[in-house]
Amino acid sequence: MPELFERHFSNRARQMKASDVRELLKLLRQSDMISFAGGFPNTETFPVELIREICDDVLKEDGARILQYGITEGYQPLRESIAGRMRGKGMDVTDENVLVVSGSQQVIDLVGKVFIDRGETMIISAPTYLTALTGFRMYEASFDPIPIDDDNMRMDLLEESLKRHATEGKVPKIVYALPNFQNPAGVTMPEGNRRRLVDLANEYDFLVLEDDPYGELRYVGDDIAPIKSFDDEGRVIYMSTFSKILSPGLRVGWVLAEPAILRKLIIAKQSADVCTNGLSQAIASEYISRGHVDPQISKIREIYGRKMRTMLKGMDEFMPEELRWTKPEGGMFIWATLPDGVSSTELLDRAVERKVAFVSGRAFFPDPDDGKSTMRLNFTHPSDEMIIEGLERLAGVLETGIRGRTRTA
Amino acid sequence: MPELFERHFSNRARQMKASDVRELLKLLRQSDMISFAGGFPNTETFPVELIREICDDVLKEDGARILQYGITEGYQPLRESIAGRMRGKGMDVTDENVLVVSGSQQVIDLVGKVFIDRGETMIISAPTYLTALTGFRMYEASFDPIPIDDDNMRMDLLEESLKRHATEGKVPKIVYALPNFQNPAGVTMPEGNRRRLVDLANEYDFLVLEDDPYGELRYVGDDIAPIKSFDDEGRVIYMSTFSKILSPGLRVGWVLAEPAILRKLIIAKQSADVCTNGLSQAIASEYISRGHVDPQISKIREIYGRKMRTMLKGMDEFMPEELRWTKPEGGMFIWATLPDGVSSTELLDRAVERKVAFVSGRAFFPDPDDGKSTMRLNFTHPSDEMIIEGLERLAGVLETGIRGRTRTA
Repeated sequence: MPELFERHFSNRARQMKASDVRELLKLLRQSDMISFAGGFPNTETFPVELIREICDDVLKEDGARILQYGITEGYQPLRESIAGRMRGKGMDVTDENVLVVSGSQQVIDLVGKVFIDRGETMIISAPTYLTALTGFRMYEASFDPIPIDDDNMRMDLLEESLKRHATEGKVPKIVYALPNFQNPAGVTMPEGNRRRLVDLANEYDFLVLEDDPYGELRYVGDDIAPIKSFDDEGRVIYMSTFSKILSPGLRVGWVLAEPAILRKLIIAKQSADVCTNGLSQAIASEYISRGHVDPQISKIREIYGRKMRTMLKGMDEFMPEELRWTKPEGGMFIWATLPDGVSSTELLDRAVERKVAFVSGRAFFPDPDDGKSTMRLNFTHPSDEMIIEGLERLAGVLETGIRGRTRTA
Repeated sequence: MPELFERHFSNRARQMKASDVRELLKLLRQSDMISFAGGFPNTETFPVELIREICDDVLKEDGARILQYGITEGYQPLRESIAGRMRGKGMDVTDENVLVVSGSQQVIDLVGKVFIDRGETMIISAPTYLTALTGFRMYEASFDPIPIDDDNMRMDLLEESLKRHATEGKVPKIVYALPNFQNPAGVTMPEGNRRRLVDLANEYDFLVLEDDPYGELRYVGDDIAPIKSFDDEGRVIYMSTFSKILSPGLRVGWVLAEPAILRKLIIAKQSADVCTNGLSQAIASEYISRGHVDPQISKIREIYGRKMRTMLKGMDEFMPEELRWTKPEGGMFIWATLPDGVSSTELLDRAVERKVAFVSGRAFFPDPDDGKSTMRLNFTHPSDEMIIEGLERLAGVLETGIRGRTRTA
């Protein structure tokens, strides 16, 4: 009697529904499907043997402690290692600024708890990370979407929006930004815009949530310093994860923030899941201290860089000329735009019939009427051969879709 | 500039503060302190070598899958094993009713998301599990506290309260119950009351959240079937954990619910932390399938049973006659009540000076004016020798406190 419980659900739960992407991912278990849909790292990159070795060592040396409850802040040696790495990227932090979390998605949830009241407006880019939208919606946020271009969030439009909010007397508290190889669009925010964003935060009194899961995955060009490295008022909350440089299954991420903010995040985490997995934290800590991170990042850059080049070359070769797409310098995704009026959602059904999948871009926009002609393509998960085969299949579907539309237009 | 961020915090975050208990636990790291304060299992019980062996095997056999993102619902063999064990306790469930979570505290958080709107009233026992209070408060719940007696929640007072709510036209949606060896009071709900609670749920149209972390830890008497085993309308959400029968550091728990409810919990978890740790789930699954759980439970029952008897005997021997305390049949805690007007919070300061600690009972009541003369004593964490030594120290402090009060009265 499911309808029985409708009365009992919260307002937010009545709005909850399984995402299209989630449903799609279930379809993709078919073995002959070539999927550009997921956002998964390639298991080929996982250092399974190293993890086995470390796991065995840490359980032997410190098993009882690792298997006991830990403090919410995180395993102290790991906090210190993370702080050290982050200082290396130009951020002025110590272990006192680090909270270890159960994967960086948890930061979205904790930030929601600590900052979002019902109806609160958050500024995001559009498109943006899907599960940030659903995560913030759990706290009944509403969104002010700022369009992107090849430089990520449009700073001119952000400033216009801030002015408008200021005129109305209520500037949003948080701007959520994914500066590096953004999910879904793959675009990167230039250094000047990062500095500008911090200046705007200081001027308009907002905080920036800098989500950086892909920062280490650069295959072309030079690293750009994180937004937080330009932050001198403690307004930037920085989050990242071991999911892309070690393993997502271990569920370890981190957040850096001013102590006044971190304290609230810690209290929120205490109620959310007490502490992060002790075994995973010990593995991550040893993995850093044994010097495995940088060689691993080099290995991933090589594998994913090759896949990205294969993908971009294949797109040039096979895709209809009406399709436009981003040229990422790293990360996991390419973002493609069909001609106006051609629906990627409709084409997805046909693509799945032809055993190739992508994510229709609509899901990455807070307004379901936006992004209908867009699509996200992942290049890290399929094998190199499958990338080519998949692009050929997909090009056929898109071609037919575009021609069909042109004929009826 | 911490005050700078005050404006940015949510309403709930402005109320958040570190709990007394959490602050206390920091004090307890002093090596000469005897602590009855924590709620930790004894590391002596952890099957470290078995976990090492299993860990090595699962990474060898299935490393790439374990280290990849998993589905939010949980690792399928583990869902099935859990469902099987739960059926063995009389609950009519399959794997389709199981969601694996990152420790059972996460269920508190997910239930908050899925059921609690701001200002929502929840029925709880008073005292109740501290971090359930803080967890539900994250969703701005208010509480209707039902006093307990040696039979756990007072069913007569619950029914009175339900009648009053029904008269006012709004019956709370959820009753939160800890039927077995309740934290903090150690008291257990008899079978008749469990049946009665389900009858009331059907009659008054509410759900029951049955929190059962200690169910396996019975040292005296016979097991009592879970509340959920009497549930024929799908109104009981049951939660438990591997923290007390395997290891808390692995952060694996589970929740059982009707599919209509489970679906919402799954969507909420997706946004909270994507999925539960793959390595921990594989370890828990193998640990069950290799037949280690029941021998482990026997071992824990023996160790903790001995500690509980030592504790109860020591209390009889040392404690002032004015002190009353519960006689648990299992779990981890004894609940003691000082004479009216003797403040356990004040005595705690003196106790810590004498190098013995407990938790002042106040924290377990939603109203900070309640429970001032109560205290929670944990017996699973200290060694047997420390239990005796600690009780002697504590008895001295309580004796002085009670005499002091009697003289001034």
